[in-house]
Parts: sequence; C-alpha cells; structure tokens
Amino acid sequence: MTNELQTISQTMLAALNDEMRSVLQANNTMPDTFHGMIHYHMGWVDESFQPVNVHPGKQIRPLLCLLTCQAAGGDWRQALPAAAAIEILHNFSLVHDDIEDASPTRRGRQTMWQIWGIEQAINTGDAMFAFAHLAMNRLIERGVAAPIVVQALRRFDETCVRLTQGQHADMDFEKRIEVSVAEYMAMIEGKTAVLVSLSTELGARIAGANEDTVAHYTQFGLDLGLAFQVKDDILGIWGDESLTGKSAATDIITKKKTLPVLYGLEQSEALRQLYRQPAANDTFVREAIQILDACGARTFTQNRASAYSEGAVDHLQAAHPSGSAAVALQTLTEMLLQRNA
Amino acid sequence: MTNELQTISQTMLAALNDEMRSVLQANNTMPDTFHGMIHYHMGWVDESFQPVNVHPGKQIRPLLCLLTCQAAGGDWRQALPAAAAIEILHNFSLVHDDIEDASPTRRGRQTMWQIWGIEQAINTGDAMFAFAHLAMNRLIERGVAAPIVVQALRRFDETCVRLTQGQHADMDFEKRIEVSVAEYMAMIEGKTAVLVSLSTELGARIAGANEDTVAHYTQFGLDLGLAFQVKDDILGIWGDESLTGKSAATDIITKKKTLPVLYGLEQSEALRQLYRQPAANDTFVREAIQILDACGARTFTQNRASAYSEGAVDHLQAAHPSGSAAVALQTLTEMLLQRNA
Repeated sequence: MTNELQTISQTMLAALNDEMRSVLQANNTMPDTFHGMIHYHMGWVDESFQPVNVHPGKQIRPLLCLLTCQAAGGDWRQALPAAAAIEILHNFSLVHDDIEDASPTRRGRQTMWQIWGIEQAINTGDAMFAFAHLAMNRLIERGVAAPIVVQALRRFDETCVRLTQGQHADMDFEKRIEVSVAEYMAMIEGKTAVLVSLSTELGARIAGANEDTVAHYTQFGLDLGLAFQVKDDILGIWGDESLTGKSAATDIITKKKTLPVLYGLEQSEALRQLYRQPAANDTFVREAIQILDACGARTFTQNRASAYSEGAVDHLQAAHPSGSAAVALQTLTEMLLQRNA
Repeated sequence: MTNELQTISQTMLAALNDEMRSVLQANNTMPDTFHGMIHYHMGWVDESFQPVNVHPGKQIRPLLCLLTCQAAGGDWRQALPAAAAIEILHNFSLVHDDIEDASPTRRGRQTMWQIWGIEQAINTGDAMFAFAHLAMNRLIERGVAAPIVVQALRRFDETCVRLTQGQHADMDFEKRIEVSVAEYMAMIEGKTAVLVSLSTELGARIAGANEDTVAHYTQFGLDLGLAFQVKDDILGIWGDESLTGKSAATDIITKKKTLPVLYGLEQSEALRQLYRQPAANDTFVREAIQILDACGARTFTQNRASAYSEGAVDHLQAAHPSGSAAVALQTLTEMLLQRNA
C-alpha cells in the first residue's frame, strides 16, 4: 500500500472502529450474551466475551465509502455512520450465510451458530441487521440533511433486497444443473457488487454531490465490485497457489459454477460430458483446464474482467475526485484491480 | 365489533392490504420464487404461487397505528406506510420464529421453511425485513416531513433490537430452570408489547402530535400489549376451552414458563417440587392449578392484567383522542382488554 493511502486509511478505519463499537454498544464492560455474540462475530471478544484482537478483514467497503465522500468534496467524518452501517450489514450477512452454507469456521474461528446454535444465531443476525439501520440513522447527528438521510436509507434497503436476491439465486444455483452466464452475472451483481456500489454511492450522496457525479461514483463501485468478483473466478482456476494461499484449481475440484466454467459449459460439449463425472482426480482437473483454455473461457473471463476494470477507472475519472483522498482512492482502486491473490 | 369500528377498520385494512402488496411487489402476475415465497407467507398465494385467500390474522397492530394517527388529529392515510411496515415486520419475525421454534405449520398451512428449506427461509425472512424498511421509507411520498421520517425509522429499528432481545431471552428461558418474574416481564415487553407500542407511537408521531401526547399514546400501546399478553397467560391455564379453542390448562401440560407459573415457582416449594416431575397426567394438572390458586398466583396475575389495562385506558384518555377514530380506538381497546379467548 502506498504511503498516502496507508496514512489516510489508518485514520479512517480507526474512526470506523469507534463508530461501530458505539453503535453495537461495546463499551469495554462485560457484555450480556445478546451483545456478546455480536461482539464475538465482530472479532472484539472471544467466546467467553474476553477482549481479543482478531484481524477485522480488509474493510474495503467502508474505506471506499469514506474515501469517496472526501474525494467528492465532503467531510469523510460525516460518512462514518454510513460506512459503519455497511460494514455491520456485511457482517450480519456473514452470520446468516454461515448458517445457510453450514460453514463451521470463519477467519480461523468458530462461526456464531457453531457456538450458540442456529436458533440464537439467526436471531442475533437479525439484531445486527437492525443495528446496521441504527448506524445509518446517526447520519442525522453528523449534520447530514434529513432528506438525504431518508434517500440514503432507501438506497440502503433497496440494496439489502438485492443482496437477498443474490443469495437466493446463489443457493438456487447449487441445486440446479444448468445456470446461464447471464443468470450468474445477475447473481454476483446482487451478492457482491451492489454493496460495493452502495458504498461509493452513499459516500458521494453524503458529500452532497450532484446526481451526475453520484451516478459515476455508483457505477464506479458497481464495476469495481464486478471486476473484483470476476478476477476471483479467474484466480479460483488459474491462480498462483503461492500467492492465493488456496490450492490451485480449487474451483474445478469443487465443481463450483463460476463464470469461466459456466461459459465453458455453454460452449463445449466436451466440458459438459466431463462435468457429468465426479471430479475425483488430477486428470479431471487437467482435462477441465485444457478444455476451458481451448474453448476460450479464460479469454472470455479475462475480457469481462478487463471491461469492468476499465469501466471502474473511467467512471472514477468522470466523477472528478479531488484532493489527497482522490489519490488514495485511485491507489486503492488500482490495488483491487491488479489483485493476483 | 361495533359498527363504528367495523366500518372504519374495513376501509383501513383494505388500504393497508393495497399498501403491503405494492411494497412487496404483488402485482397480480406470477411471481418468481423469491417474491412468491414472501407472497405465500403473507397468505396471498399457495405454494405453487396461485392466488388464494387466507385470513391474514387480526392485523391489530396496523389498525392501532392508523386509528391512532387519525384520533391524534392526523390523516390515517399518511400512516399507511408505517402500518404496512409494522405488519410486514411482524410477518418477517414469524418466518424466523417458525425456524427457531421448528414449527411445521402456521394458520393451518405449512411454514415457509417446511416447504422451501431453512436456508432459503432465513434469507427470505431477511428480504422481508428489508422490505419492511422500504415500506417505512414511503412515508416521505405521503408528505410526512423528512425529520419525522428519520425519527420514525430510528424508533422502528430500536424496536427491532428490542424484539430480538425478547426473542433471545425467550429461547434462553427454555433452556434454563429458573426464570424470575422480572426477567419474564422484560422478555414479554420486548417480544410482544414494544411492537404494539411502536404502532401507536408512530401513528401519533405521523399525526404531528406534541411529545406529551406521543408519550401517552406510546405508553397506551405498551400497557395494552402487556395487558394482552398477561391475559393470554391467564387463559393458557384458566381459559374456557369452548371459547379459546385450545384445551384447558394447555400451558400446564407443556410446563410453559408463563407469569402465573413463574410467580408460583417463586412463592411455593410445593410447586417447585411438582415441576421437577413430568407433567404426564391429569393429577399433575389438577395439583398444579390447586397450588397456583392457593399461593395467590391467579390473583397476582389478574392484578397485573388489571393494572396494565387501567394504565392503557388512562393513557388513551390522557392523549385526548378525537373524532370517530377515537370512538373506534376506544372500542378496539375495550375489546382487546375484555378478551376471554
């Protein structure tokens, strides 16, 4: 990370952390179980509710929100409630995703439902969803005009609906044999990209940017989110094991329906035949990758990623970001788009 | 139901239904699965998404919201988004409660998770939670001032947090041996009364009532909700089978920890001893009721119900409701407080 981005993001993420702790009532006293479960999931306490320091994840979304607000001519501190809301919302969705996917661990720790049971974990997730809204509501205390707060809340909940539609489709795809490239793109847009897009949109709205500028920042976030996800699909098959930390071709071994695979299944009878068999051995993986390369699935996916990347860069430029936050935002964007892990 | 209340509530509930259908995108065309699951739970379609008419429940909360708005000097139509939000929120909570309680049926139909699985039902509940917020957001389209919308949304989400705290406690109590009367009262306040209280509070706020009047309507709803729940506890033990439709003493047979039982367990060693045994036969039920009567549990519970009932009536009077909606509101209140089924 360059120094400019590093300095500014340290300040911003420290303030974000304070904001989230305030919303989620983490005041350094022993929490009751209701709050303690939330604090555990946020990585602030262990399962006995004793303080710990767990790495909170990259917090890219709130950082994008705060940087966008500042780069669009606003004061990033005014956007802290929205940034906190987006990060709490994201964490809420992980609680329910972990139940829905039956995931026993997350970031090296037991998931909430593993410790406290599915019933309580569903309910605590719901509480976090409500807290995310209460975080948003604090915009009014930061002097954001009430009509902008109402509009921001509308966009927040429209995005939540899109997120649940994306998750619905994702779970549905696992049970289906055929999924089209178009369906898949709609799914990852809902499941991943709209929340990145909301982050930049709200930053711009809170800065009081005009609708044209807001539209560019919104599309910047959307393209950035899509580019990031499509690159993830490339790394899942052609990624460098030493960089990604996952075994190579992991998405082939698990037969995951990602963009290159779905494109390949649309294009190649050979891949369709291969995928009717169990993915049991190295031969399967080698053959699958050969077919994907041969039928143009890798090129197709890379072209998509490039198109979204260019879209993101173009829209960010068209939004005319200014000041040191603009430099940091551009650096962050480049980092996210050049990811190889 | 008296004619005044009957006429006004028919008009209001028809408009409420239209509002909810609009928010939940039920436009008389075949829904996709995502929307269809929601429409099924609302009682608008069957599990093949064909239109049906299922009785929607009493819809007391939205009716209280609309009547309060009108009686507090507002136009009830302005409160329709809040009334719809509260009813959708209530329905969302039932989706997750049914999963948490492993309930296979509700209102004579299969629950959502029974048909579409726990994973999709959790997610669809989340979508309904988001839609409830989008319903609230439509207040702005009805001409409610933005600062009032922001405040109403804050109260909405603070109430959601209370609801999840109540549900957390309720599930926790099932696993515990000792629960105090005070803990129980806090639980039912969160699980039941705060949503009734929110209904009347938001009606008054949207009417533009002053803070004193809002406070009386808020407390009216809270006392009404508590009175209703405590009476429910009385009916669960001493209710008339021919009126309640449940078998008498059902809460004794299931050893449910309701207010009279918890009071009895605090007061009577005999009841504590009895409750260590299985509730297997009629002798158990007869003995339990004898002890509850003897130790004053019935009187205690009836006194509590009376106190909340009087509180509700007093606060409603102190709020000075006016017009035909006031008459309807008073009639509805009397009906709810005189319940024997």
